[in-house]
Amino acid sequence: MRVFIAGMDGYLGWPLALYLTARGHEVAGCDLFLRRQWVEEVGGHSALPVFSMPERMQAFRERYGRDVIFRKGDLLDYPFLKGFLAEFQPEAIVHLAEMPSAPYSMIDQAHTVFTQHNNVIGNLNVLWAMKEACPDAHLVKLGTMGEYGTPNIDIPEGFFEVEYRGRKDYLPFPRQANSFYHWSKVHDSNNTMFACKVWGLRATDIMQGVVFGTRINDMGEDPRLRSRLDFDTCFGTAVNRFCCQAVIGHPLTLYGKGSQTRGFLPLRDSMQCLTIAIENPPQRGEYRVFNQFEECYTIDELAELVQRAGKEVGLEVEIHHYENPRQEAEEHYFNPDRNYLINLGYQPTHDVKAELIVMLADLLPHKARIMVKKDILIPDIRWDGKHRRSAVINTKLATPEP
Amino acid sequence: MRVFIAGMDGYLGWPLALYLTARGHEVAGCDLFLRRQWVEEVGGHSALPVFSMPERMQAFRERYGRDVIFRKGDLLDYPFLKGFLAEFQPEAIVHLAEMPSAPYSMIDQAHTVFTQHNNVIGNLNVLWAMKEACPDAHLVKLGTMGEYGTPNIDIPEGFFEVEYRGRKDYLPFPRQANSFYHWSKVHDSNNTMFACKVWGLRATDIMQGVVFGTRINDMGEDPRLRSRLDFDTCFGTAVNRFCCQAVIGHPLTLYGKGSQTRGFLPLRDSMQCLTIAIENPPQRGEYRVFNQFEECYTIDELAELVQRAGKEVGLEVEIHHYENPRQEAEEHYFNPDRNYLINLGYQPTHDVKAELIVMLADLLPHKARIMVKKDILIPDIRWDGKHRRSAVINTKLATPEP
Repeated sequence: MRVFIAGMDGYLGWPLALYLTARGHEVAGCDLFLRRQWVEEVGGHSALPVFSMPERMQAFRERYGRDVIFRKGDLLDYPFLKGFLAEFQPEAIVHLAEMPSAPYSMIDQAHTVFTQHNNVIGNLNVLWAMKEACPDAHLVKLGTMGEYGTPNIDIPEGFFEVEYRGRKDYLPFPRQANSFYHWSKVHDSNNTMFACKVWGLRATDIMQGVVFGTRINDMGEDPRLRSRLDFDTCFGTAVNRFCCQAVIGHPLTLYGKGSQTRGFLPLRDSMQCLTIAIENPPQRGEYRVFNQFEECYTIDELAELVQRAGKEVGLEVEIHHYENPRQEAEEHYFNPDRNYLINLGYQPTHDVKAELIVMLADLLPHKARIMVKKDILIPDIRWDGKHRRSAVINTKLATPEP
Repeated sequence: MRVFIAGMDGYLGWPLALYLTARGHEVAGCDLFLRRQWVEEVGGHSALPVFSMPERMQAFRERYGRDVIFRKGDLLDYPFLKGFLAEFQPEAIVHLAEMPSAPYSMIDQAHTVFTQHNNVIGNLNVLWAMKEACPDAHLVKLGTMGEYGTPNIDIPEGFFEVEYRGRKDYLPFPRQANSFYHWSKVHDSNNTMFACKVWGLRATDIMQGVVFGTRINDMGEDPRLRSRLDFDTCFGTAVNRFCCQAVIGHPLTLYGKGSQTRGFLPLRDSMQCLTIAIENPPQRGEYRVFNQFEECYTIDELAELVQRAGKEVGLEVEIHHYENPRQEAEEHYFNPDRNYLINLGYQPTHDVKAELIVMLADLLPHKARIMVKKDILIPDIRWDGKHRRSAVINTKLATPEP
């Protein structure tokens, strides 16, 4: 299939280009390289060296004996986007080109506005460009499990049957996002659902859990084919951040009690799931929602898994609890469905500790790169709009038994 | 109270400035006069002459012996907005400064993007400016009953108790808007709910029905104090449009079967309700949703009411059904709650026909102004993205008995 990847330079976009190519798909993509700028803006850098796109493309050519089609460009530039899609005529469009950080969206007015403008308008442009240039294509849109928040009832996949005052309907499941970033994803989901209804577009909206991991098999041992891996408090997600902290002997930074439960999945599972969605498109006019994660864990459980994996590679890992900079429920019910992908053949990685050991091994050679940035590990962007570094509220020194 | 009105030049904004001033409140406001440009862009003009803001302000001064504070400015201009709020220190902020037309938002990519950008970013700026300049103020935000769509269950006011797979929660009611404009309002509602939660702002989100009417008592007989009244297919809402059509002997343009049911309310009820909300603010951190309408009617019922009112003032009114340019359910369940405002003292106007007779009398002297624009009465913006004037599919000539 011809697959267009918006955001091809990103943490997911680049591995997906490799993964799809290895499976015989033809890939084209675009990126404006903003992620590189945002991470620099908040004082971070990738723990794994990120090569330039021309270097990546050269390595791609050497590995696959063919070119990946890439153009630098902005989804906010509608003529660019529509022209590219009209020319490439993709059968699937994977939209990974959004600003993905909750804390970044909460910094101040300018960052809130940037986030929702970039994400909502970029996605509207994707919808209009599809309608005008390739209306039969299948949009695979990256949402987030964070759209749902933590309701006190089970979380279905996008829709549910409601009985209310004696009448029934099948309705969109209520969303309760917890940052302006997460709300931008809800806005996108709503706009996408509507475009499928009125224009007959087809879309899969992926409510993805938190992704972690340093590699997929298709990267081989070529460092130019690696993806980025961020560990700052804005763009570093929980497990990636923990592994970087473990490597430099910094305590793992848990926010609050650590009993917050979320869906998580390794990078290789994310590639598997996105590809399943791409290869099994919905009907014209259909808008479907997939919840995408390997399993639900508390943050505490994952930190302890990192601690154990660290022990196996000779690292003594401490866990510290910090004041939670977010306003979120720390004790809550969380039971999301995950049936669509399983029914389509998704085989979850069940050995998370093995994945963590691979990560630590990949990160250890880059200990010095991480150490340079050890001042950006403590959260300081607070949900109340104030900026103050969180204090340690509790420490957990002993390594638990496996 | 000190009340700030964003969108003070608009259909609701200007009458609200008069209504609140007459009740002893101190009013300040801003507007960028975009509504005047949009109506011109789609080939329309107001059936009632709209005076310039300096002329309106002069008439205001003559009537009330005091000045209304007004500055031309854009909600997208954050320093302007924050500075104005910091200076005026409003106790209530009424946000009426959005692009309000569903068809306009569906014209093409540029109009979709304009609508969501203008509305979503403008509202985000209001939230941030409140947080930074007047965090104790009460935001009265204009949403629309159209956020809910037409679910097959009762529509509560914003939230409902859900039982699902044996567990319960109190959740936001699912929204199923039916245009990119209506979705922009949903996005605003979601962002506003979140800002109340994380920053402790207070807000009343008004899910308002379709407003109609040419006057409120506080306008007296001074034409400079009148509000605008649009009748083009973008900015003319159902009843206002029908009354203008009746005045020039054009058949009333019903879309589809006309059995679509919506909440409606006269302009004077809208003023009454907004003022009730303003004078009864919620607690800090509270986000409440009011459904605001006088009663639910089918479009057909209202057209027949206009027909009967027309007969009383000597107009013979025909009703034509046109192909529906929108994709919407024409036969559907519709039963929204409307308890909050009633409990706070809202007294609905029950004599809609009397209101329509006032409207026709107000519009008859301006028959020539309406006649000039008789070519813009037939809808041509279609929800499938194509542009084509709707054909007549059925006509109803006889005037029904009252």
